[in-house]
Amino acid sequence: MTAAPHPILNPVRKSHVEGDYHDHEVNLAHRNHGFLLEGLRHDVTPAGMHYLLIHFDVPFVPAPDAWTLSVGGLVETPLSLKLADLAALPQITTRVTLECAGNGRSLARPRWPSQPWHVEAVGTAEWTGTPLRHVLGRAGIKRNAQEVVFTGADRGFDAGIEHDYGRSLPVAMALSDDILLVTAMNGQPLLPQHGAPLRLIVPGWYGMASVKWLTRIDVIDHAYQGFQQVGTYIFKQVEGEAGVPVTTIRVKSLLVPPGIPDWYSRRRLVERGTVPLFGRAWSGAGVPITKVEVGIDGRFSPAELDSPAGKFAWRGWRFDWSAEPGEYELSCRATDANGDVQPLGQRFDRAGFGNNTVHRVPVTVR
Amino acid sequence: MTAAPHPILNPVRKSHVEGDYHDHEVNLAHRNHGFLLEGLRHDVTPAGMHYLLIHFDVPFVPAPDAWTLSVGGLVETPLSLKLADLAALPQITTRVTLECAGNGRSLARPRWPSQPWHVEAVGTAEWTGTPLRHVLGRAGIKRNAQEVVFTGADRGFDAGIEHDYGRSLPVAMALSDDILLVTAMNGQPLLPQHGAPLRLIVPGWYGMASVKWLTRIDVIDHAYQGFQQVGTYIFKQVEGEAGVPVTTIRVKSLLVPPGIPDWYSRRRLVERGTVPLFGRAWSGAGVPITKVEVGIDGRFSPAELDSPAGKFAWRGWRFDWSAEPGEYELSCRATDANGDVQPLGQRFDRAGFGNNTVHRVPVTVR
Repeated sequence: MTAAPHPILNPVRKSHVEGDYHDHEVNLAHRNHGFLLEGLRHDVTPAGMHYLLIHFDVPFVPAPDAWTLSVGGLVETPLSLKLADLAALPQITTRVTLECAGNGRSLARPRWPSQPWHVEAVGTAEWTGTPLRHVLGRAGIKRNAQEVVFTGADRGFDAGIEHDYGRSLPVAMALSDDILLVTAMNGQPLLPQHGAPLRLIVPGWYGMASVKWLTRIDVIDHAYQGFQQVGTYIFKQVEGEAGVPVTTIRVKSLLVPPGIPDWYSRRRLVERGTVPLFGRAWSGAGVPITKVEVGIDGRFSPAELDSPAGKFAWRGWRFDWSAEPGEYELSCRATDANGDVQPLGQRFDRAGFGNNTVHRVPVTVR
Repeated sequence: MTAAPHPILNPVRKSHVEGDYHDHEVNLAHRNHGFLLEGLRHDVTPAGMHYLLIHFDVPFVPAPDAWTLSVGGLVETPLSLKLADLAALPQITTRVTLECAGNGRSLARPRWPSQPWHVEAVGTAEWTGTPLRHVLGRAGIKRNAQEVVFTGADRGFDAGIEHDYGRSLPVAMALSDDILLVTAMNGQPLLPQHGAPLRLIVPGWYGMASVKWLTRIDVIDHAYQGFQQVGTYIFKQVEGEAGVPVTTIRVKSLLVPPGIPDWYSRRRLVERGTVPLFGRAWSGAGVPITKVEVGIDGRFSPAELDSPAGKFAWRGWRFDWSAEPGEYELSCRATDANGDVQPLGQRFDRAGFGNNTVHRVPVTVR
């Protein structure tokens, strides 16, 4: 777009107090599906229960066989690959917990008007594909390369700026064994809304790095300046500061809300007696979970940990609660091998990124 | 529950003006996934893109083989059926468009605080299972039977009333060929959130009739008084009136929003020139769609209809729009073989049921 964008494509985001944000946020919440907390029971999140964060529209791909991945920029041999070419490369399957960087945004005050996640932007899938390094190896990265840029087929506006969705990784990281070009999820072909027919998976990082509907890989000799890299996904306390890029997932845990809910408020009723509590915990960058504690009205006791389920997968935990009639607030708090612990108070970020405050579930026991 | 429910399990639903409804509605919108409008391109909605309306929690079913469907009440032979018993009965596959009765709720004024659908509570799937009449035939319905009640494994509160989710159908309707007990969706085993391992499908009716996680079928000699039958899903203009039960889907249509969106507002930018518009239209009770019109700023012209895709499935339509730069409101309006037409103004219902007002999409053409 040569001229300044039309104001409707760069809407002022009104604050909670000013008021008209509600319809926008409800539309985003309906489009970008949340994980259902009772789905924590499943080691691998069933299709359709995994969170979604789709910045623009899901591209319509009537003929996946015609899909082309272009590899260019600072490479010895530019490539144009079909899915069949990728299928001929070594395939691996990895269980990965992905979380949206904005998860927890709506728990923070003041709220930033955007995707209004409370705690539900998470999911764990088994992704099948080829390590990216096989493709980069075939192309041959030149010596002056600094970053690898990934571009999706999805295009739109954010903050008035028109762009294809794109993100970059440092070259060294792009060459690690962990980064995958995937074509299948949970043993089935990728679903359209999860990036079919081809996406990137960056285990251990928040989801924005795992570019969907991947069409281009470009090797560059500078720091990528795309909107999704420098215009958002930056931790900031106040407007105007340089901030720190959002990268790896922070330690976090969730619990399956026990008992039965009220339809509208989702408040819970639990029967007195021994209540088996269960949940999952995870951290980023492959750092293991070492401890989960369960809080009953803020008094924490250690939970029992299940066996680890993979370097990048969440870990189950369980705790038997002896529940007497009354009102309670249940919570859970995870610690990882770096010694990082979920905060009890809010972890403030201006745009609501990286909020790993403990999960709280109020219940009534009868 | 013998005593009156705790007030937190019967929350006052504050109005839009009074204010605290937002977090409740956002939670519901994240849980109950909306259809993505660009998914209208698919004849059959891909897994995970179909709308969900889950009143309570998705039951966790670790061993589907142990699932039992009990058939009792006014039958000659009470039955206890496993999935294998149902699989031995004749199987059919039917393409069915389902819509939530509350779709369009948030377009009406005043808004009723509940699941805040705008237009996205719809989807079309291919359901595989056995016609219910085979099971009822094996059980043998007694002469004084009036209704057949379907009960799910999901339990919770609504308006302070604790209940298992349940709905009924008249006996004559339950015996029609169209009503199915299904175990598969789009050629795959049912997903947990769509009612696995067993659900009812009532084609042509709003989704509340298609009971998920089906555990019991009871034949009774009176009108079922369960909460989901008499406490909600009733058309009312004002509180206190008897109202009319919500049953068959009203004629409706949607269009794929053209161009590219702004992330936050979802407003659209479209390139000038010939813009192919595309969408789907459907009605209830197997009534065919006979006409779709496309409105450009309220001036309607007929669209071209695709071939019908089944008695209970939506029908595609297309229209080429010659777009000049400017601001426009696109809309679509369907008519069915009964002569029912979507209203241009709002169709008011106190709780927001059955709102089939035309779909409107504002766009900017450059």
